[in-house]
Amino acid sequence: MDTLFRDATVLTMNDAHEIMEHGDVLVRDGCIAAVTTDEAMPAVDAARPDVAVVDCHGDVLMPGLINAHAHISMSLFRNYANDQNLQTWLEESIWPLESHLTREDIVCGARLSMAEMLAGGITTFMDMYDEEAAIAEVVEAVGMRAVLGEGVTDRSLQRKLPLIQEMIETSTPRVHYMVAPHAVYTCSPETLRTLGDLAASAHVGIHIHLAETQQEDAECRAHYGLSPTALLHREGLLNGQSLLAHGVFLDDEDIETIARAGASVVYNPASNMKLASGFMRLSALRDAGVNVALGTDGPSSNNTQDLFKDMRLGSFIQKGRSGDATAAPARAMLELATRGGARAMGRDDLGQIAPGARADLVLVDFHNIRHTPFPDDVEAALVYATAADDVRLTMVEGEILYRDGAFSHLDVDAVRHEAQAAWQRLCAFR
Amino acid sequence: MDTLFRDATVLTMNDAHEIMEHGDVLVRDGCIAAVTTDEAMPAVDAARPDVAVVDCHGDVLMPGLINAHAHISMSLFRNYANDQNLQTWLEESIWPLESHLTREDIVCGARLSMAEMLAGGITTFMDMYDEEAAIAEVVEAVGMRAVLGEGVTDRSLQRKLPLIQEMIETSTPRVHYMVAPHAVYTCSPETLRTLGDLAASAHVGIHIHLAETQQEDAECRAHYGLSPTALLHREGLLNGQSLLAHGVFLDDEDIETIARAGASVVYNPASNMKLASGFMRLSALRDAGVNVALGTDGPSSNNTQDLFKDMRLGSFIQKGRSGDATAAPARAMLELATRGGARAMGRDDLGQIAPGARADLVLVDFHNIRHTPFPDDVEAALVYATAADDVRLTMVEGEILYRDGAFSHLDVDAVRHEAQAAWQRLCAFR
Repeated sequence: MDTLFRDATVLTMNDAHEIMEHGDVLVRDGCIAAVTTDEAMPAVDAARPDVAVVDCHGDVLMPGLINAHAHISMSLFRNYANDQNLQTWLEESIWPLESHLTREDIVCGARLSMAEMLAGGITTFMDMYDEEAAIAEVVEAVGMRAVLGEGVTDRSLQRKLPLIQEMIETSTPRVHYMVAPHAVYTCSPETLRTLGDLAASAHVGIHIHLAETQQEDAECRAHYGLSPTALLHREGLLNGQSLLAHGVFLDDEDIETIARAGASVVYNPASNMKLASGFMRLSALRDAGVNVALGTDGPSSNNTQDLFKDMRLGSFIQKGRSGDATAAPARAMLELATRGGARAMGRDDLGQIAPGARADLVLVDFHNIRHTPFPDDVEAALVYATAADDVRLTMVEGEILYRDGAFSHLDVDAVRHEAQAAWQRLCAFR
Repeated sequence: MDTLFRDATVLTMNDAHEIMEHGDVLVRDGCIAAVTTDEAMPAVDAARPDVAVVDCHGDVLMPGLINAHAHISMSLFRNYANDQNLQTWLEESIWPLESHLTREDIVCGARLSMAEMLAGGITTFMDMYDEEAAIAEVVEAVGMRAVLGEGVTDRSLQRKLPLIQEMIETSTPRVHYMVAPHAVYTCSPETLRTLGDLAASAHVGIHIHLAETQQEDAECRAHYGLSPTALLHREGLLNGQSLLAHGVFLDDEDIETIARAGASVVYNPASNMKLASGFMRLSALRDAGVNVALGTDGPSSNNTQDLFKDMRLGSFIQKGRSGDATAAPARAMLELATRGGARAMGRDDLGQIAPGARADLVLVDFHNIRHTPFPDDVEAALVYATAADDVRLTMVEGEILYRDGAFSHLDVDAVRHEAQAAWQRLCAFR
């Protein structure tokens, strides 16, 4: 069935940054068939019996948000182990529990996060964790879009290589894969090369944690005489499909290297602040022409999967850090969360509302207190005022997956119940 | 009528930081009559016909949040004029419109903000603006608690002095006043002294913007050879009732001076980041024994009145800035937003749930995705995961003012409508 969004304020996120008042968007076969303010078109289409009409009453229709770096199954560890420095947090709190996670736990945490993401306007996520084949099944069942990367370290390389090969071969229209070396401090140069070769031969990108902390940078330089970026470059893993999560500690040379390779960097402001990693050089990266996307990182270092919160945070800290209130303006943050994520996936048919693009759409309630007076600066309102709870409807590939608190393919009470039970079992290992 | 909150997770915010599971809180005559886990008491009280029972089902009952620095009527300028540096923002965007604000506009903006605050768990606010006598009438009608300060500059001193005197004499149980010199760059030492004398003779505190920007600090030192804090001290305005908003640029000596005077400082992280003012030295202030409260500042530099968002932001930026993830832990942020605000008002009967305290209470839904698994660290969940929209109920002085989307004394559709009309009229002056 076709869907017609009628009378929306359409944030197209197209190259001209067009925002249409009283716009209509027709969705057919998972794709955007028409975007118009021509009053004749919707009247014709709205009358067709096979068209479901969504009356938007001037609310904002925007492209689905893309969460470009996450570990969604870590929602089981949400609100656990806070206010700890990174090494304590990992070694004393997270890793001991992670070692007891079952495949079922991972599926359960993934389902919980997908509910949260859909309710908050996220249509696509790029994940790195274990058991991604199982997560893929949930993605298919729930109807989201994802790019999954089975995380690999030196210790897991041999075990996981065949799995990864197999996964990549099962790509579907909504579920793609990347090869995911965990980081330069958990993967030797040999492991990196092996994984880089695998990615190249499969024509997929790599997804890696890079330059997240000062310690990572210092140790890499001490061991290899190279920055993490330079090491990755030397081993042949930097190209137009590479997804570099964090990128907090990048010097000018690193940024130049990344720009020349055409790789994408994922900004994770909440996690970088909560774990006290540091401030990413957003302006320097964008000025150098690097594509930047936005990520929540895992729900255990955030503690949500809410890109509205993180667009605001990500902008605010850039302004505060630089002393320049014009830094990281609202439009730039929206680009990170939509087009930036799409470019990181090599897709021009995501992250914008345009005829021919995939119908990944979010409808945001602008008729509430937070959006009163009705903003003439829609972009600023979305970044600085909108909350995830303002999302009225989330659609992926033309299918409505969330609307007014109800999920199409998720029983959220059951999901919460299962997650609670999984967590209680894990608590025994604390 | 009495109210019994039954089976709550009670975040008392008392000195022992007690959190009670399956707690019951009895409210009588605007005040907390009992806090207990004793099962006999609620059974007795719940049976009384004059008791309204609120079944909490384990949701979190906490003290109402205190917004210690705001200009609530600026909600009319919400989402207008973003990504601008402070001087451009003030001189080109805000002041030209403010000069056209009528008393009705100010009332209208105040009403809009009170709706937002109540829906987000804020029970008390401390305001600085024009027409505070009119705002007081709204506070009384809506049922909130407030400490109001008519903003004064050199230019408005003579006109406003009698007004302020009159206002202070009309204090009521829920509406108190402070004397509010705008800042050291808009008030001469003579004006400061006059206002300080007025505050002293009326036994009320002063509420002032202090050390907000580097420019203010530099200009004050250039003009007077003193920091803004030292100038304020010299003019006799620093004492245990003083409320110093921002305090971004304070050196060790300033902090020492403030600590010795027993004054309170208000942390406004969202505004300080959005306007690129800088990072307040929260740990240094608290280590020196200074009472710190939390504020949203005006909705035009935030762009919300959401202390849940700002507790998270305020903590995250302290961690990121210091490189220490243990900085500004969740408990400290909750203290700022409750006890810190209460202490700034000289009140021990606000900001905590204890027998004898005023019944300013907030019930937060912990049975949703953001709070799954149910957190054993309730404080961290409230600061890092909870959203304003999770507030189920807000009570002030024993009266329920907001519950499940409905306001007791506000017609929110009418309020939004009026605000929209006021804004449209103001747009002619842009």
